[in-house]
Amino acid sequence: MAENEIYRASTYAPVNIAVIKYWGKRDSKLNLPSNASLSVTLSQDDLRTHTTASCSKEVPEDSLTLNNASQDISGARTQACLRELRALRQEMEDKDPSLPKLAAMKLKIVSENNFPTAAGLASSAAGFAALVRAIANLYQLSVSPTDLSRIARQGSGSACRSVLGGYVAWQKGEKPDGSDSVAYEVSPASHWPDMRAIILVASAEKKDVSSTAGMQQTVASSALFQHRADEVVPKRMKAMEKAIHNRDFESFAVLTMKDSNNFHACCLDTQPPIFYMNDTSKAAIRMCEAINSTQPDEKPICAYTFDAGPNAVVYYLAEHEDLVAGTFKAIVGDKTGWEGNRGQNIKVRSETLEGTQAAADLLKSGVSRVILTSVGDGPRKTEEHLC
Amino acid sequence: MAENEIYRASTYAPVNIAVIKYWGKRDSKLNLPSNASLSVTLSQDDLRTHTTASCSKEVPEDSLTLNNASQDISGARTQACLRELRALRQEMEDKDPSLPKLAAMKLKIVSENNFPTAAGLASSAAGFAALVRAIANLYQLSVSPTDLSRIARQGSGSACRSVLGGYVAWQKGEKPDGSDSVAYEVSPASHWPDMRAIILVASAEKKDVSSTAGMQQTVASSALFQHRADEVVPKRMKAMEKAIHNRDFESFAVLTMKDSNNFHACCLDTQPPIFYMNDTSKAAIRMCEAINSTQPDEKPICAYTFDAGPNAVVYYLAEHEDLVAGTFKAIVGDKTGWEGNRGQNIKVRSETLEGTQAAADLLKSGVSRVILTSVGDGPRKTEEHLC
Repeated sequence: MAENEIYRASTYAPVNIAVIKYWGKRDSKLNLPSNASLSVTLSQDDLRTHTTASCSKEVPEDSLTLNNASQDISGARTQACLRELRALRQEMEDKDPSLPKLAAMKLKIVSENNFPTAAGLASSAAGFAALVRAIANLYQLSVSPTDLSRIARQGSGSACRSVLGGYVAWQKGEKPDGSDSVAYEVSPASHWPDMRAIILVASAEKKDVSSTAGMQQTVASSALFQHRADEVVPKRMKAMEKAIHNRDFESFAVLTMKDSNNFHACCLDTQPPIFYMNDTSKAAIRMCEAINSTQPDEKPICAYTFDAGPNAVVYYLAEHEDLVAGTFKAIVGDKTGWEGNRGQNIKVRSETLEGTQAAADLLKSGVSRVILTSVGDGPRKTEEHLC
Repeated sequence: MAENEIYRASTYAPVNIAVIKYWGKRDSKLNLPSNASLSVTLSQDDLRTHTTASCSKEVPEDSLTLNNASQDISGARTQACLRELRALRQEMEDKDPSLPKLAAMKLKIVSENNFPTAAGLASSAAGFAALVRAIANLYQLSVSPTDLSRIARQGSGSACRSVLGGYVAWQKGEKPDGSDSVAYEVSPASHWPDMRAIILVASAEKKDVSSTAGMQQTVASSALFQHRADEVVPKRMKAMEKAIHNRDFESFAVLTMKDSNNFHACCLDTQPPIFYMNDTSKAAIRMCEAINSTQPDEKPICAYTFDAGPNAVVYYLAEHEDLVAGTFKAIVGDKTGWEGNRGQNIKVRSETLEGTQAAADLLKSGVSRVILTSVGDGPRKTEEHLC
């Protein structure tokens, strides 16, 4: 082994968009949530963070670069992740003295997102999942995704759900040290592979109120939030897991829409009130309602959800692609995002849905691009290194 | 007494704007609310319904005209009010046979609002209060305002608060027949006469979802609403009554803003979600926050509240007129509503509040007129008859 050998490992990690929302911490140091949550991991073909972790004796200090910009790595969250991963590596090295002494080396971490950062597209989830997965690969740790989720959670709560693919739950956990607040697979992507999503990007600006600040304001001031955390979410988690197991889109859709609205209701009930949705977001809701209302018995074929920002994520099944994505293509087909094969193959829905003119006008002026994606797998190892 | 004598009585009745909101019925036939509410009666110099009730043997059928348009009077709500008032008149006539037999005559009711109808300006409250008060006057009933509120409530829930002036509560009541679900005076206008309001009219269009339909959808589908009704509002009612008794504007303001947001949070938590506020409404909230943040310790000097529509009602005290209304005059001083003496005397606040440019732009394009008003008294009898 050469004296100045450089060790490196790279991974892609996916974005996830929750259908039962995480909002509020019961412990902000450990990122322990007030309630469980559940998300769909989105395909890394469309949205991903690519991260290389490297170390050598020559690396002078820990560093992190994101999209070519140097990032502050001194924050307690990032430090907690590095500390835990190094401790696991140290254990391995203590047991097997023949291993190279990586735990003592400084880390150089380089990341790239293929989507706008901090626009409500869950970039911190993919980012921390990629960081933790890349270092775990570098250190050749034999950790389960659940072990890894416990570490990623300390970087960014929702990151713990991005270490797994498919349909992923993050259980609240009961222990004060957070050791049972981990992610688990509800179903793999292969169980229900025809889940699709269209993201209507309504803003690529940084949000007014960060999730971290916003959720703490909600916990401190909302008169409704504790009821959501204690009573509303636990029932919905069970119902959502069942819907996924049964591939029951109708239940999945109703729960998804209700929980998005319930979360934003708690934001509005915060003092001062937090508004992540804007008039464009509401237009997306109205359009989804119009799409669903054309179905027999108004059985939903699409479900909107909004994170801490105005972008709409609309879930639907592949069989309804023309009915759902085709409706949006008729309205915002001139925006970026329809260029690929999949976008080209979507048939524009020519029929105008009743009473949607005002919503269509708002979408035309408020949506800047669309992203077509689908349920996807967990982090993927790659030999393409960024440093 | 002439054979064909025409009997008539007229009244003005005020608008009221709740600071603890009524939303949701526990009995929709009797208009019994899920929770108590509390409002400020606004001055009839600025906003009022003017109603004349008349009857004679020549009147062929019951009729109601509002702003020169004939109204359907056959609805269960209007019929309940007429039935109760006639029954009280009949009792009087039975006891004193010398009285003219008005209970048997048909009623001709003519009303005029001096403000846009159904634009979220509580027109039905003033309308039913005026109708009930005018007929009670016509019938020379010796009923207390509380008795009258019980009747007005059956026409439109919030109308029961418009039969009184000043600061008015509507108690939820416990009895199944609704006999204890009545309004009472918390404090007369004279107790705290310097309460002012500026109404930013963001839309004079009819609303998407009527209050009646909207509140029933909320009761049926919101996971948060029952918690609001059972836990949140009862505490706030006590605190608000105390704030009014103590003329404690800070507490009044915080409770008012929180309860408006809490009510709209329950609307958003409805399936499908109900949005009464729009981006103009949010801009009004941001502007109020900016005004309050300039105060020592950010002690609020103004409080926004929104009914089932996008119009902002901003309460403040007379001493802060230039700081509050003057800020809005600097932004929307070119709109209708500043013409009177009071509007002319308000000093434009020249200093631009930090970070309010976007909100100011939204207000400029979204606000069509302002209404300057203040706390006022209860229904006023008038000899000016409309028929």
